[in-house]
Amino acid sequence: MENQKRTRVGIENVKPEVEEGIYPIKRVIGENVIVQADIFADGHDMVSAQLLYRFSEDSFYERISMVHLGNDRWEGSFRVDRIGSFLFTVRGWVSEYRTWCQDIGKKQDAGQDITVDLKIGISLLEKTKEAASSADARFLKNLIDRYGKKNNDEKIISLLLDEKTKELIDKYVNEDIITYYKRELCVVVERKRALFSTWYEIFPRSCATKGKAHGTFKDCEKILPDIANMGFDVVYLPPIHPIGKTNRKGKNNLPTLEIDDPGSPWAIGSKEGGHKTIHPKLGNMENLQQFIDRAKKLGLEVAIDLAYQCSPDHPWVKQHPEWFKWRPDGTIQYAENPPKKYEDIIPFNFDTPDWHSLWEELKSVVLFWIDNGISIFRVDNPHTKPFTFWEWLIKEIRQEHPSVIFLSEAFTRPKVMYRLAKLGFTQSYTYFTWRNTKQELIEYLTKLTTSEVKEFFRPNFWPNTPDILPEYLQFGGRAAFIIRLVLAATLSSNYGIYGPAYELCINEALQGKEEYLDSEKYEIKRWDRNNRGNIKEIIARVNKIRRENPALHYTKNLRFYNIENDALIFYAKSSEDRTNTIFVAVNLDPFHPQAGRVQIPLSELNLEADQPFLVHDLLSDEKYIWQGEYNYIALNPLVLPVHIFTLKRYLHRENDFDYFM
Amino acid sequence: MENQKRTRVGIENVKPEVEEGIYPIKRVIGENVIVQADIFADGHDMVSAQLLYRFSEDSFYERISMVHLGNDRWEGSFRVDRIGSFLFTVRGWVSEYRTWCQDIGKKQDAGQDITVDLKIGISLLEKTKEAASSADARFLKNLIDRYGKKNNDEKIISLLLDEKTKELIDKYVNEDIITYYKRELCVVVERKRALFSTWYEIFPRSCATKGKAHGTFKDCEKILPDIANMGFDVVYLPPIHPIGKTNRKGKNNLPTLEIDDPGSPWAIGSKEGGHKTIHPKLGNMENLQQFIDRAKKLGLEVAIDLAYQCSPDHPWVKQHPEWFKWRPDGTIQYAENPPKKYEDIIPFNFDTPDWHSLWEELKSVVLFWIDNGISIFRVDNPHTKPFTFWEWLIKEIRQEHPSVIFLSEAFTRPKVMYRLAKLGFTQSYTYFTWRNTKQELIEYLTKLTTSEVKEFFRPNFWPNTPDILPEYLQFGGRAAFIIRLVLAATLSSNYGIYGPAYELCINEALQGKEEYLDSEKYEIKRWDRNNRGNIKEIIARVNKIRRENPALHYTKNLRFYNIENDALIFYAKSSEDRTNTIFVAVNLDPFHPQAGRVQIPLSELNLEADQPFLVHDLLSDEKYIWQGEYNYIALNPLVLPVHIFTLKRYLHRENDFDYFM
Repeated sequence: MENQKRTRVGIENVKPEVEEGIYPIKRVIGENVIVQADIFADGHDMVSAQLLYRFSEDSFYERISMVHLGNDRWEGSFRVDRIGSFLFTVRGWVSEYRTWCQDIGKKQDAGQDITVDLKIGISLLEKTKEAASSADARFLKNLIDRYGKKNNDEKIISLLLDEKTKELIDKYVNEDIITYYKRELCVVVERKRALFSTWYEIFPRSCATKGKAHGTFKDCEKILPDIANMGFDVVYLPPIHPIGKTNRKGKNNLPTLEIDDPGSPWAIGSKEGGHKTIHPKLGNMENLQQFIDRAKKLGLEVAIDLAYQCSPDHPWVKQHPEWFKWRPDGTIQYAENPPKKYEDIIPFNFDTPDWHSLWEELKSVVLFWIDNGISIFRVDNPHTKPFTFWEWLIKEIRQEHPSVIFLSEAFTRPKVMYRLAKLGFTQSYTYFTWRNTKQELIEYLTKLTTSEVKEFFRPNFWPNTPDILPEYLQFGGRAAFIIRLVLAATLSSNYGIYGPAYELCINEALQGKEEYLDSEKYEIKRWDRNNRGNIKEIIARVNKIRRENPALHYTKNLRFYNIENDALIFYAKSSEDRTNTIFVAVNLDPFHPQAGRVQIPLSELNLEADQPFLVHDLLSDEKYIWQGEYNYIALNPLVLPVHIFTLKRYLHRENDFDYFM
Repeated sequence: MENQKRTRVGIENVKPEVEEGIYPIKRVIGENVIVQADIFADGHDMVSAQLLYRFSEDSFYERISMVHLGNDRWEGSFRVDRIGSFLFTVRGWVSEYRTWCQDIGKKQDAGQDITVDLKIGISLLEKTKEAASSADARFLKNLIDRYGKKNNDEKIISLLLDEKTKELIDKYVNEDIITYYKRELCVVVERKRALFSTWYEIFPRSCATKGKAHGTFKDCEKILPDIANMGFDVVYLPPIHPIGKTNRKGKNNLPTLEIDDPGSPWAIGSKEGGHKTIHPKLGNMENLQQFIDRAKKLGLEVAIDLAYQCSPDHPWVKQHPEWFKWRPDGTIQYAENPPKKYEDIIPFNFDTPDWHSLWEELKSVVLFWIDNGISIFRVDNPHTKPFTFWEWLIKEIRQEHPSVIFLSEAFTRPKVMYRLAKLGFTQSYTYFTWRNTKQELIEYLTKLTTSEVKEFFRPNFWPNTPDILPEYLQFGGRAAFIIRLVLAATLSSNYGIYGPAYELCINEALQGKEEYLDSEKYEIKRWDRNNRGNIKEIIARVNKIRRENPALHYTKNLRFYNIENDALIFYAKSSEDRTNTIFVAVNLDPFHPQAGRVQIPLSELNLEADQPFLVHDLLSDEKYIWQGEYNYIALNPLVLPVHIFTLKRYLHRENDFDYFM
């Protein structure tokens, strides 16, 4: 009984919180953290509630008064202005003084005698005065003295009931009566690119300008301006390491090996080296540095692949046979997902008794590339390695290098993808690649942007990858490529394409599969980057619109609106201060013109029904004047299957509009 | 790094769980606990998952294999067969053997050579054999020997892949690789009346048979057969203690005091005694014992009121002035909810430095009445006392007396009501009293029966109380009383009425309020219990139907079905084994006949569209033959505004039906 807590306030249902605070929520620098909690006490007494937050390395909490939203729900917020970790929690208590203020107000209104009640209030001030700083004590003494002279004066009472007086009293609350939420919660704050990034994946070996020669970093440098002109900011390279010879895969993943088949870059390691070595035909470390520097000058950051697996020829196989699985017949266990076999790739045995040295070596790979100027890693198949390994690795790296970004390439079951995001991956691949219909898109995006998933999972939308040429792109023609690009670029603040296959609208697949015919994974390609029918100009415009409109720098600000046609989808995003709003309408049918009425959320935009407004399509540069809630849209896939609008308020003078979003 | 957990399985989202397991879930003896969890691992390996449970005083867990429901969701269940506490948790691990079985099956199907794989499987058996009991080791040795003789034999392989073999291997899993859910969860198991009870509230002082004399327990005994005949099983008495004289309230809660006004029973305490004393005019402790015994013989349990507050004349006020609040003018602080004043009642000061002695004394009150044969307490206004007090009190009482039932009379904000339920109250008053329309009822009941609320909050539905005569009853006439009774009795397994005001359909209210005119709280009444127009016969029938149909012994088994009229509501409940199903249709409009088609869930009932079935109204004893999904219902409030149906399958022989629910 002596240990019985005597606090009267209950605190529950604190949001945002991931898995009882085991995992942090995620933000980028400059973002807001809006905290809500159920905070309540027995009876009718008034509660005071505060949000406490601090940078993890600071000692003291900032305190923010929370606001009562009704039904015992409270809210407060703070902005994260540094990369690293912030901690926050909430606390509440029954405020004797605020309760007194509430009651005396009601008694006054009912015309009851409050003489004795006033004395009670003054005694509360006196109690606080003893604990108060000299300035605050002076303030309180002044109040008490004024009451002493002229006790029932209306002016004194209004000073007593003033919010400033209440907050002063709150400052000296007795710790014994405060309920603290049971834990501190953590926000990991990353750099802005963690939330807003535009990726371009390219095989450097296909960048040679002549014939089927093996491309080099030097060749790649020449392509960088083209990538920058399209508006990308991350150039991601598949593995750049030596490729094994044993069981090397040939064209179209067939086992037959032509003499000059280059092999899959993911079959890492040969006698020339492993994960810390550059494929000799790409160049050397100096060439890579030049490539990184050149990219940087063009506003591009280079990302590389982190594929924790080996070819049978990887030096580690001989140096550390204990890191792999061996079969009773003495052969090494290659990768398989029965009945499929991947004989050119050997997985690590993370259960090895020697896991300690294996984990350390894998960590040293990341550190090696960080030392060589890389700070974005696209991680290959993280879902086939233990969660605990990633949790350890990412924490270790982040301690010294908080700006490093890890993109999880996990196309697997949802709970596994979410766990990888929770334990630390910055961004993640998604199911967007297979969400094509209006219903599928709304359902999936609603989950990503409105459920607790939004607190830890940052989607990165890819309409294609070297592994995946979706059916929709195989059959939808050029319009399909534009549709999927605009969806990816406007639904998600992070997105990427595998080029130049994308901008050239390459759509030939292996029969009955969602894989590229003559995939670049198994052969060197020679692309005509400016081939007829390419959509480079549209990509450049879309990426420019993304850069220039802060509304598109976020994902969880997405809102869907009504459009009266199931082949059309209509949605909007606004910047936090609502000075920038982008509306997007997409015809999801790549074959037929579709039309329908959109329902504009007039009240959200402070528009009256009789007020005309200008609609400006930033992609086509066309302008329309609309009015009222319902307006007509028609989208022809042969012309342009999308609108990306801003709206401007019409000031009733010709050609004079006021941007209001 | 050495402390890094090496387990590969994640366990999340375990249900049922209340507030991260801080509070237990609730069951009554004989109920099931169905446990679900997300249990998943990296990669494609197979997971084994178990539910562990034990009675709190037992040392060892029972283990139940959980079943994979899909999408990494697993389920298992156990039955609670003892009053007290059960503990449960879940665990999972990556099963090397089950993974091997899955892979070899796929390889076999693809016609691949499995010679080496078989050796791997056998080595797993050999590893297990070393740890196994002698019986299990013999079983494994036999398998290994048979493989040794004839290794690729189909029969051997099917033995290896047999579920029995897998479960045997699971028994010897290495603890190192098991992930346990992070906590043990608790189920508090109570007696059946905690979930199924039928309350009748009566003022004993109004039970005298002559004039306005003060009734006694002896008088009350005479009324017990009538209450039992109506089918109730709990008789609840408002406070039976001496009533204070100071500031006593008169008729209709007016301050003017007639010489013989008896005062409110909730103004507890006079010089004759306090919470452990019986009002002298009701009788003595021996009379109460006789009353309790007589009730018991009629199948009735007596509940009393636990109202922790005092009249100004309570002996405690003089003995323990430190338990109360005193104002600067030397007067005691009476109860108020400004601007309302309750001068006849003084609350305790739970913040007193002497809280220790106060809490102990309040606990001794409960123990005193338990010693005198009471084990159901209706707790008055628990929401105006600290949560921590109730949590301590209920835990203390339950340790020695696990059968005691506490009903929380908290009509307050939802989060406060839920917290009181979480911390231990057995049952709770609800907002049912003010939920009248179809939409209100469906919304509220859906919350109570399908959200996490169902795990800790046991509703007790009261259509009226001495404090509340709802508008619906004031204006709806006799039909309204029948409608609200049937709703309470069939929607909730716990319900009660304040009688005889209810069965006599008393509907005169204070002008503009939801309070009884000439309320029994302030005066002694003389009721003609068999007055014309009473609904005793209907109450008796409804309570008989409740008793005889296990479907109505639960609340969270409620399901709403479509009925094509917004004035009509239609719902059903089934017993756990589905051998008993009750359908209820209610006309919520007490003034007009209403009709519409109900939609019978044929597939849930295994009925074909062309199969006629018998519908038997257990209340009116009328029978109908229906067929197909849609059937017509008409309910006239002047006749009977409700149906309470069972359905019987028609066997195509006249008058020969087969009960199937």
